[in-house]
Amino acid sequence: MNKILVANRGEIALRIMRSAKEMGIQTVAVFSEADREALHVRFADEAICIGPAPANQSYLVGEKIIDACRVTGAEAIHPGYGFLSENPSFATMVAEAGLILIGPTPEAMAIMGNKLSAKAAALKYNIPMVPGTDEAIKDIGEAKKRAEEVGFPILIKAAAGGGGKGMRIVENLESFEEQMLMAVSEAQSAFGDGAVFIERYVSSPRHIEIQVLGDTHGNIVHLFERECSIQRRHQKVIEEAPSCILSPEIRARMGKCAVDVARSVNYTGAGTVEFILDENLDFFFLEMNTRLQVEHPVTELITGLDLVKEQIKIARGEVLSFTQEDLKIKGHAIELRVYAEDPAHNFLPDIGTLKTYSTPKGNGVRVDDGFEEGMEIPVYYDPMIAKLITFGADRQEAISRMLRAISEYDITGIQTTLNFGKFVMEHEAFISGNFDTHFVAKYFNPDVIDEGAEDEALIAAIVALTRFKPDNSSGATSTARSGLENNWRKNRLKYK
Amino acid sequence: MNKILVANRGEIALRIMRSAKEMGIQTVAVFSEADREALHVRFADEAICIGPAPANQSYLVGEKIIDACRVTGAEAIHPGYGFLSENPSFATMVAEAGLILIGPTPEAMAIMGNKLSAKAAALKYNIPMVPGTDEAIKDIGEAKKRAEEVGFPILIKAAAGGGGKGMRIVENLESFEEQMLMAVSEAQSAFGDGAVFIERYVSSPRHIEIQVLGDTHGNIVHLFERECSIQRRHQKVIEEAPSCILSPEIRARMGKCAVDVARSVNYTGAGTVEFILDENLDFFFLEMNTRLQVEHPVTELITGLDLVKEQIKIARGEVLSFTQEDLKIKGHAIELRVYAEDPAHNFLPDIGTLKTYSTPKGNGVRVDDGFEEGMEIPVYYDPMIAKLITFGADRQEAISRMLRAISEYDITGIQTTLNFGKFVMEHEAFISGNFDTHFVAKYFNPDVIDEGAEDEALIAAIVALTRFKPDNSSGATSTARSGLENNWRKNRLKYK
Repeated sequence: MNKILVANRGEIALRIMRSAKEMGIQTVAVFSEADREALHVRFADEAICIGPAPANQSYLVGEKIIDACRVTGAEAIHPGYGFLSENPSFATMVAEAGLILIGPTPEAMAIMGNKLSAKAAALKYNIPMVPGTDEAIKDIGEAKKRAEEVGFPILIKAAAGGGGKGMRIVENLESFEEQMLMAVSEAQSAFGDGAVFIERYVSSPRHIEIQVLGDTHGNIVHLFERECSIQRRHQKVIEEAPSCILSPEIRARMGKCAVDVARSVNYTGAGTVEFILDENLDFFFLEMNTRLQVEHPVTELITGLDLVKEQIKIARGEVLSFTQEDLKIKGHAIELRVYAEDPAHNFLPDIGTLKTYSTPKGNGVRVDDGFEEGMEIPVYYDPMIAKLITFGADRQEAISRMLRAISEYDITGIQTTLNFGKFVMEHEAFISGNFDTHFVAKYFNPDVIDEGAEDEALIAAIVALTRFKPDNSSGATSTARSGLENNWRKNRLKYK
Repeated sequence: MNKILVANRGEIALRIMRSAKEMGIQTVAVFSEADREALHVRFADEAICIGPAPANQSYLVGEKIIDACRVTGAEAIHPGYGFLSENPSFATMVAEAGLILIGPTPEAMAIMGNKLSAKAAALKYNIPMVPGTDEAIKDIGEAKKRAEEVGFPILIKAAAGGGGKGMRIVENLESFEEQMLMAVSEAQSAFGDGAVFIERYVSSPRHIEIQVLGDTHGNIVHLFERECSIQRRHQKVIEEAPSCILSPEIRARMGKCAVDVARSVNYTGAGTVEFILDENLDFFFLEMNTRLQVEHPVTELITGLDLVKEQIKIARGEVLSFTQEDLKIKGHAIELRVYAEDPAHNFLPDIGTLKTYSTPKGNGVRVDDGFEEGMEIPVYYDPMIAKLITFGADRQEAISRMLRAISEYDITGIQTTLNFGKFVMEHEAFISGNFDTHFVAKYFNPDVIDEGAEDEALIAAIVALTRFKPDNSSGATSTARSGLENNWRKNRLKYK
């Protein structure tokens, strides 16, 4: 494999190309007209424009991606996450074009792409499932009966769903029918598939997922868990590995289940098996993501493996170079997704230009990003600017390092989730490990977070008051400036 | 310990403050008039100007440092490396002022500060020494006799020496007297101490050092070795951990010797015991550095420890939280010192302004620096811009990651050692591990290194020829630009 096309953009395209480069593999970028200045375009050995900004005219058009391979001679495609990464038709199209998709087979993708067929596959291995229906609801009367058996509140979920769409909590039998009809119509319009099913509602759930790797020779291992319970709008924003709630015994059981789920579809490549963990530390299979996850770096840091390199080696037909017993957790890693969003306004996207942009450095800090100062966050795509990842000997060190790194991160021009991250890292519930997916709803009050001293007049005033009174005599002058620690890099504005 | 003053500048000041911040400790920066815009000044909670640019009027004036502690209420001083870090008089002055020096005792510093007293201390523990004289040469006749016993060529070294000053290789008895007189006079003028001694000349030496940590309760451990054989002008420029030449058995013996050397002076804090390793893999004690080393990050990466935090904990009187048996090597780390030097002109300092400056990112890359774009490298101090450190599962991955990181590093305006680093990483002798301290003299030819396409007209021409031909049809256009991979970030000049 001499040349790989990366069918993605932003931080993940850059991240994939870095690993390819380290393996001596040439890279091809594709880009939409909105991304012509993007870093992934400059980083690649070759770059091809594949159409206008909207993803359905560029990044989502499989034919254009395959054409780009033909033009450049790329032999393999890495789809990243999102876009075409979990699309079985695209996977089939790639295979038919005689190219290699760095990912699982179209069959595994198709089965795991639907929650109900995924459950059916996993059932063979006695994987624990949340009590509910194993098939799409066809008969309201039967569904009601099953809902009563399971016990209210129950959850109605779309088989094709994700990100909370088509999901409804039903408190009692009376409202069941109405809520179900609404869920079906929501699922139909969001996914073109109105199939829904019911599950027991877990009131205090933690979202914990297991990373798996399978080669084409039948070897499957797990790389331990990621705790992804800190979410906003049903989407992950802070992840960590390992989870502080899992005992070694539960970890081993969960890992075995994840390997079994992967085995049920002869999984090849990197995948993630998602579980829900309830108050009693019982866990249940939720779904499998058949691609690299956004949060894969925390697993890389605690295992020392490079997951993209592992994906590429698997796609080349290599045998995994380690067994389950070789894998050990070392240290603790936390990831904060830095979104262009305003936590004070329900995390709504806040698109604009990165007026200043400089990233933290030093021991145990990794920043995966796709922007630099002066660039604009395009309105067309996910507003993630960067992933800020810290690694420490233990959880306490990873947290304190995250706080230090957040304080060094300088972004002006847009609102971000950085200060939200600070709020979480300093919150007693997070520090103690006693939290669930309702963390934001329960604890987050946008009024309490420090929005950063955006007011430059204020900064200038503080600077004037406190800094740089050179004193050539040995009697020196103290220059305290405690209010500025979160904006230290901004001071450079003064000098330029 | 609530507040620490960092008596240093540049990357090491920033690096120390980062660890202090993660421990919840306030920091005080000191700065010379040349450093008022420096990042360490902005990063600190408080900052004090201690005088004009020349170090002997600011960073080397102990009284000013202690005054700065009094003014700010700092309880402890971290001296970093260089400047006052190995000065026993300063250490005594700090203790007498009722302050804590984060480092060893003045006694340990004084003994190890002189090569002859260091040897005398180490002799108690039967540490292997290069055959030669154990005392300063007083009688030319006796010295000649001893030189003949040791066998030519021999090395004359200054007791107070370092960095190759006062060092002479003597090929035969005839030239011995003349060379010795020159060495004495050189040592006298460089160190104010004309004491010299002789040692067998090791023709193919590797420089390998062991990191040690000792607490104030008598516990001393070693943190394995660093290989520092890639040097220019007798000074380290590339370091790695572990060394690829040491067997576990030699590593264990060397580690034990290092701990014994530290024990010979009841060493407390972080220190480094330097050895020379000959062609037969026999090792000999050279000297001990009683401070944090520039190259400490490679040890941090393979052990997972934060050495500055360990120093601070030891200074607080804490017991080491691990034993020798707890310590394991995981992975491989390499450091390249990025100096403002011109490898094509004998590594002479190349001072100027960082016209562009942007650092590599991603998995396994750490950059410890003290500059940002637009800043000037001051002429007054060591011209090190940054330390580029890569970490991988094994040596091969650390090397390929270093090459990838070097290609991402964008520095224009001055010459640096980056391309020299590329030369070394790609050199067969380095890759195979078959090298010694003569690597540069043996292999380095400045003509072969790529100086980077500094010519912007050339870049613009390549850019115009190869990039960004948006094509809205699905038939895309390839845009190869292989010549640019070392300058990818420079393309941004086009957009600004």
